[in-house]
Formats: sequence, structure tokens, C-alpha cells
Amino acid sequence: MRRPATLDYNFNVPKTSPQDLLQEFQPIFYPKSIAVVGASHNVFKSGYHWFKSVVDAGFGGPIYPVNPHGGELLGYKVFPNLRSIPGEVDYVIVSIPRENVPELLDDAAAKKVKAIHFFTAGFSEAGDALGLELEGVLIKKTREGGFRVIGPNCIGAFSVEARLPYGPAGRRHQPGSVSFISQSGGVGEKLGELAVARGINFNKGVSFGNGVDLDGPDFLEYFAVDPKTSIIGAYFEGTRNGRRLMKAIKEAARAKPLVIWKAGRTDVGAAAAMSHTGSIASSPAIWSTIIRQSGAIEVHNVDELADMLLIFQLLPQPKSKLQGNGIAVVGGLSDGGGGISVSASDACAEAGLNIPPLTKETKQKLTNLIGHVGSILRNPVDLSQSGSNPDIIRQAAEIVLADPNIDLLIVQEDVGVLLKYLPIELARTLNNVFIELKARQYKPLVLVLPHGTNEMERLELERELAQASIPVFPSMERAAKAIRNFSQYWQRRPSAGS
Amino acid sequence: MRRPATLDYNFNVPKTSPQDLLQEFQPIFYPKSIAVVGASHNVFKSGYHWFKSVVDAGFGGPIYPVNPHGGELLGYKVFPNLRSIPGEVDYVIVSIPRENVPELLDDAAAKKVKAIHFFTAGFSEAGDALGLELEGVLIKKTREGGFRVIGPNCIGAFSVEARLPYGPAGRRHQPGSVSFISQSGGVGEKLGELAVARGINFNKGVSFGNGVDLDGPDFLEYFAVDPKTSIIGAYFEGTRNGRRLMKAIKEAARAKPLVIWKAGRTDVGAAAAMSHTGSIASSPAIWSTIIRQSGAIEVHNVDELADMLLIFQLLPQPKSKLQGNGIAVVGGLSDGGGGISVSASDACAEAGLNIPPLTKETKQKLTNLIGHVGSILRNPVDLSQSGSNPDIIRQAAEIVLADPNIDLLIVQEDVGVLLKYLPIELARTLNNVFIELKARQYKPLVLVLPHGTNEMERLELERELAQASIPVFPSMERAAKAIRNFSQYWQRRPSAGS
Repeated sequence: MRRPATLDYNFNVPKTSPQDLLQEFQPIFYPKSIAVVGASHNVFKSGYHWFKSVVDAGFGGPIYPVNPHGGELLGYKVFPNLRSIPGEVDYVIVSIPRENVPELLDDAAAKKVKAIHFFTAGFSEAGDALGLELEGVLIKKTREGGFRVIGPNCIGAFSVEARLPYGPAGRRHQPGSVSFISQSGGVGEKLGELAVARGINFNKGVSFGNGVDLDGPDFLEYFAVDPKTSIIGAYFEGTRNGRRLMKAIKEAARAKPLVIWKAGRTDVGAAAAMSHTGSIASSPAIWSTIIRQSGAIEVHNVDELADMLLIFQLLPQPKSKLQGNGIAVVGGLSDGGGGISVSASDACAEAGLNIPPLTKETKQKLTNLIGHVGSILRNPVDLSQSGSNPDIIRQAAEIVLADPNIDLLIVQEDVGVLLKYLPIELARTLNNVFIELKARQYKPLVLVLPHGTNEMERLELERELAQASIPVFPSMERAAKAIRNFSQYWQRRPSAGS
Repeated sequence: MRRPATLDYNFNVPKTSPQDLLQEFQPIFYPKSIAVVGASHNVFKSGYHWFKSVVDAGFGGPIYPVNPHGGELLGYKVFPNLRSIPGEVDYVIVSIPRENVPELLDDAAAKKVKAIHFFTAGFSEAGDALGLELEGVLIKKTREGGFRVIGPNCIGAFSVEARLPYGPAGRRHQPGSVSFISQSGGVGEKLGELAVARGINFNKGVSFGNGVDLDGPDFLEYFAVDPKTSIIGAYFEGTRNGRRLMKAIKEAARAKPLVIWKAGRTDVGAAAAMSHTGSIASSPAIWSTIIRQSGAIEVHNVDELADMLLIFQLLPQPKSKLQGNGIAVVGGLSDGGGGISVSASDACAEAGLNIPPLTKETKQKLTNLIGHVGSILRNPVDLSQSGSNPDIIRQAAEIVLADPNIDLLIVQEDVGVLLKYLPIELARTLNNVFIELKARQYKPLVLVLPHGTNEMERLELERELAQASIPVFPSMERAAKAIRNFSQYWQRRPSAGS
């Protein structure tokens, strides 16, 4: 739904000083109190789940359920409206029919709340006359009300440390330093699921839907200066204010790794975006150019986004710009190393990674260690002839890592193939070889654990590696692409370490 | 290791009639008897596992373990050599030190065996003088011996119906009509694992390693005429005889769907291939051109290869060349449909798929069914507002499938997101909606089940769908690419149905 030109969204002047920005977003990401408007006993209503989610997350400050029916909910006194709440209210979560939003806005202004998140949908994105009218009312009353608005039509703010959950069915997250911005609530949700599965630790997140007040650039500007955020992931479908977003992308990418998934790249995708969040998408080529020139990393789907957040979280910033170019690959821990050497070479070379030859000294050491007929003692290194001996595999990895041409080691550990030949105990021992290696030396390790028939064991080993801060990817192609993007970010960055 | 020009590999005249070819390969893929040379009591030797694997597979004919030590193995009398076996021997599996191969070849000639597979490695691929010398002896004695040779340095032949296992640790496979050719044993093994995991049913397979006698083109020619094979997957690193392989690719692709993964595409990959199977790779552009012109499908890794074998196995050949162009996508079975609509549109459009608008009638029917505010009743269809009601989801899918513009429906069923909102029982019910739909109507269904936090439940639902002959992919990108390739194969084929 194309937004009517009569609606004026740009009523808030962007903050310029980091202090102002941090202060402005404090009540959103670190609220002292939360009200849930639409909190209900009815388990078929979102309001029930929203309130329960906030309670279950263990939010520390006062929580106020709001519902005209009053009474009690999960042991909390229910207030008939915002005005009747005795204490101050920082953050309001709204899950009520759209028709009731104007009155809620008046109450919020009277109560002097700091920020409101509208889970409620049915505004400009709905495409009907009432939706458009209500979006106009929302804008007008927000302009006059003295509060900030997230949404409507979104999941809103998420803060692991503040115990503000992501949505009415929040997951438990380990606190970390990755923050995300998602125009789509569903994408944020899927990203949260992948984070839990793969060991990405969030600090904050937000889905902003129609973004009638706070929009993509606002959150990007905030995360760029937020001291708790060191990596930013973003999903955008479009923006009202391309110039400001461009500037925000540039500044954020200069401050910290920024990974952007721009959806609605194709005509059909752009049309879907317009129905979804009312976004008018610009040409994909323009976006790609802006992203590349800013030094940010562009990805094309949620898996690639998760890949990049994981690798930025786990690998240290390269010490110099020359580093990160020499990649070694080790495969065939039990069998099948020859084909892996060939296909891993292709995957790495096609991603633009450099697989340098090993030095004569390294080759000699490997030959002394596993120089049987049939071993491929070149880079990629085929360990099929090591007999899956953990000690030999450890030594081989150490020899390769000590090579002066090598900056990073990728290990292909195919759990399904391993378990065809070895008991799970030995597979665990092999997995621990890399965990111990990671703890002892400074060159980064990346593991590839392809999917197959032994998914439970694969998950167990992946979790062990993730807990040891080793990034795990499900294919050589995805690992290679992530490493290439990771290297490029640090190489292109105006001044590394600044 | 570059092959010495002095070795003459091309001593066997290619068979031209299908009857000759079928007869020639009969003792390989349907042997009446098998000898395992190197069968041993020592569980640390491959020969033990090879023999056990053949026994465990339930091979129906006589099985002869061969070892100079004699005695008994797993209840079978051990013969000191091939000559001492009383009955006829069709197929010989060899797992002995390379030095003993010349004597074995003399015994095989004397015994008049039909075919020998050399698991034994250490020939031209090893790169030492003895390896080269032994490869020369192998060629000479094969030329004179009257038998065919598979390998050396490979896993050899695999035949589900004949109960000839793939390797010394064979898996149980459901018999089907997909056959594969792999220059690398490890790639064949991984493909076998993915087949079991994803429901690809093999008929036959072969890994041919150095291919001193039977080479890629031989097997391709055979599978092209084999009446039990209806789909062929191939992994090649290179070939000695490009012209013959080119012709074989062309003829096989005309006969049945042929999917080719050519590895060693990059310089570093080609160098690894030379060490692995002694292959001299041609330029990747030449290969891609040959593959495209032949009408075969080119893929770039083992996952894409499995994707294509799965879709060719499960989707029927389109009824006309015009079909297969109109794709509908349905997502958001519980939540998050808006972002999926946008990103699925991008993934499909970027793969070259056509996501046509739904007819006015279809839209009206969908609006009547789920026309709440917030629903996106366009293609892709966002079902977030269906309340995860199985009956509404079934009806919506039926309405979309009945649209005259739609030839195929992709359903995004994100198990991790579903289970955030629904109990597993309801997720199973939703899954069954598509299984029942598949049984009742003729337009093909494809499901996308992304990975996430609920991998066990995801696997269970994937297995149910696979058993109902619905192809499942882990991402929209991979589904879209597979559908595009599937359509292209049938569109480019000289005469569909011939």
C-alpha cells in the first residue's frame, strides 16, 4: 500500500549527540516500568501472551496489566487504563483492536509515558480507508503526545539485559553484544531462533513494522553509539528517508560491523514489501552500492545474516589488514577427504578466499606424521590416512596452523561420515581436539559440520564448539562466504581498530 | 599427479548397442557371486569390513572370502586365492596391499572372473614411482585378462536390488530409480547419507577413482540405457577422454534427467583433483557449456546434487512445456508470514521463477476465507491470520492450487516458529494437511522446512512428507533453484516424453 503523501512522518528531528541518543532510547531498551495494554485472561488473545511473556522474562521493575475489565492477572492487579496506574510508566506494549488506539494515545499523553510499542496492526499496511485514517491519527497524536512510538504492526523492542522479551512468546537468550533491527517481526523471530540454535548472543533487538515514528535510521543511529552493542544485524524492506538511512548505514559501519539484509530486491519482492510494511523499495543496485560503499556487509537471506553475526561475534578482529588471507582446509577426519579437498577448494576459491600452498617445512612435517600412500599432503589437507587418531589429527592441525602462510584454519568435520566409522565417544574426542586447540592458540578456527543422518549428534557437537567460541557452519560454501565477508569488512573499514 | 603419456588407458572399445552394454555391466551390478580378496579376521583392516558389509547386505549368491591364511570368517570358508574357489566368480572386491595386485590379476585371469573392483589405492594418484609402475601393470594385465576393472582407489559398484553394498560400511537404502556416478568415493558416501536422510531412493551407484579401465563415460552410457535407472547424478573431477564423455553426457541427458557436479572448477580445486584421482580438469567454462548444451543440469555442491535428485524423483514430468512456470508461495502458517512473503519473492524471482498474480476470483475466495486486516492476500500468500487452523490452511492451499495461473505450490513450514506457538500435535496436523492435499490433487507441492531450534521435530515432519513423496528443502533459495533447474530440464529436452 503506497503511503499517502498527505501523511507527514518526519516530525522528529534526528538526535545528533550520542548522549542524546542514548538518553532517548533508555526508556525503550532499559525501561524502569512496563504497561501491557490489552492484557487479558483469554489465552486466545495476544494480550495474554504478551503480559505472560514480560512476567516470564523476569523483568525487574513494575509491570502493569491494563484492561477495562480490571481484576487480577497472573497475580498482578489489572488497571482499567493507563491513567489509573499509580507509578510512572516508561514503556507501553499495546495489543488492542486498532479502533481503540486513538483513546489509548490520549491516555498515554496524559500519563506522560516515554515510549509506546504497537503490536496492534491494521494501519497503512492493511490498505483500507480506516487503516489509513488511523495511521494519520497515530502520527498526529504521537507528534503532540511527547512520547516515542515503535510500530505499529511489529514485535517492538527486545533487551536481554533489561529482560524485555522479544514478542508474546519470547525465547531465553544468553546476553551478548549482537543487536538487530528488523522491519519484519517474523524475520526478527526467525533470527532469534537461529541465534539460540547457533550460539549467537543478543544484546538488543527491535522490529519496527510501519515505523511511523522511530524508523530504521533511528535504531541504526542508536545501535551505532550503544556501548553494549558491538555488532549490528539489520533487515530492511525499504525506508521513507533514504538519505538519512544512507548516512546512518555509513556511520554505523564505521563504528562496528554492520550486516544488512535488504529484502524486496526483486519486483515481486518489492510488491510484497509494500503490502507487508508499506515500504517503497528503492532499486536493489542502489542499495547494494550504498551498502558496499559504506563498508557494511550485504547478505541475501536469514541464514547468511546469522552466519555473519556468528562469525563477527566469535572471531577476533584481524591484527593487521594483511591478515585473514591465507586459509587452510583440513578434511577427511575419518574418510572421504579426497573429494572434500577438491570441493572445498572450489568453494573457497569461488568465494574469493586464498588457499595458499603450504611451505616445504610444513609439508615435510605432515609427511613425517601421516605420509602414507594416498594422503594428500597439500592444502586442502586430506587426513583420511590418519586413522581418525585424535593425537595425529591434533598434531596435523597444529602443523598447518604454524605455517606462516596460514591465517585461519577451516576443518570439515562431517558427523554423519564420522559416525559411520567411529563410535560417538571417539567423535566427541575428535571434536574436543579442536576445542582444546582453540583454547591454546591464536589463529582462528572455523568448523564445517554438514547436515546428514546423525542430526542429534551433530547438534551436540555443534553446541560444544559454539560454547568454546568456535563458529560452525553447515557447508563449506557458507563458511567460505562468511570468512570472505568478515575479511572484507575489516579490510575496507576506514581505520581498523578505530 | 599428471598421468604419464606412456600409459595407454583407452584399450577397451566402447559398446554401442544397449544390449551389449547391459550385458557387459550385468556381472558388475547384478553379480551371481562375489569374492572379497583381503577378507580378514582383523577388525582394523578394511578387508574385514568389506566382507562383513557384503554379508550384512544380504547378498543372495555365493560369497567367497579370500585370504592366504585360509580358515573361516563369519561362518564362510576362506579360500587362499581366487584359483582355489570352486564355483564361478562374477565380481571381485580387492582390499590388499598394492604390491600384491599383480599376482591377484594373474589369478583373476586364470579364474576367468568377470569384473574386479580395486578398493586398494596407491597407484598413479599416489605420485610415487611404484604407484605409477603398478598402474602400468594394472592396465596391461587388465587388457590381457578378459575382465573389466573398476578403480583402483575407489568404493566401486553399488546395487540396491542386487544387495551389493556401497563400501565397507554400507547403509540400508530403499530401492528406487536414482543411480549415481562418483569419481570420489567420499562424495558418493556423503550422497548416500543425504539420500537416506532425505528420502532419495537409489537403484545403483559407482565410485570409479582412477578409472584405469571403466571410466565416467562407460558408466554414463550404461545408466543411460539401464531400464532400472530413471535419474542419473554424477560427480566428476575430470576425464581422460573429454570427447567421449561429452557424447555420453549428451546421450544420457536426452534419455533421462542427468545432474552433473563438476568439481575442480577453480585452479586450486583442479590441483587438488589431480592429487586425488589423477584427473586433469578442463576449463570450467567448457564444462558448463557442454553440460548446458547437452540439456543436463549443472550443480555446484553435494547438497545441490541431492536437491536435484530428490525433486526429479518426486515430481512428475510436467505435462506440457508451458507448465511449471506459475509458482505460488504460502507462508506464515503460525506467524511471520509478511517477511517470508517478501524474502520468498526475492528468492524465487532471483532463481528465475515466475510468481504470477492470483486471479481476482482466487483473491475473492481467499478474502472470504481469511480476509482479516493484516492478511496479505496476494502471491506469496501470508497465512499469519489463519490462526493456524488446519482446515482454513487446507482450504487456502486448495484455493491457491485451483488458480489457473498456478502450476506448483511452495509451502514454507517453519517448524521452529510453529512450535513456538503450537503444540507438536497441531504441527503434525498441519503437516498432514499437505500430505492429504498431495494425495488428492495433481499440481505438485514442494515444502520448505528451515533449520532452527527444533531439529528433531523438523526431521520427523520432513520424514512424513518425504514418505508421502513431497520434496522438502531447508531453504526457499534451495527450493527455488531446484524447481528452476527441474523446469529447465524438461523445457530444454529435445522431445519431452521421448
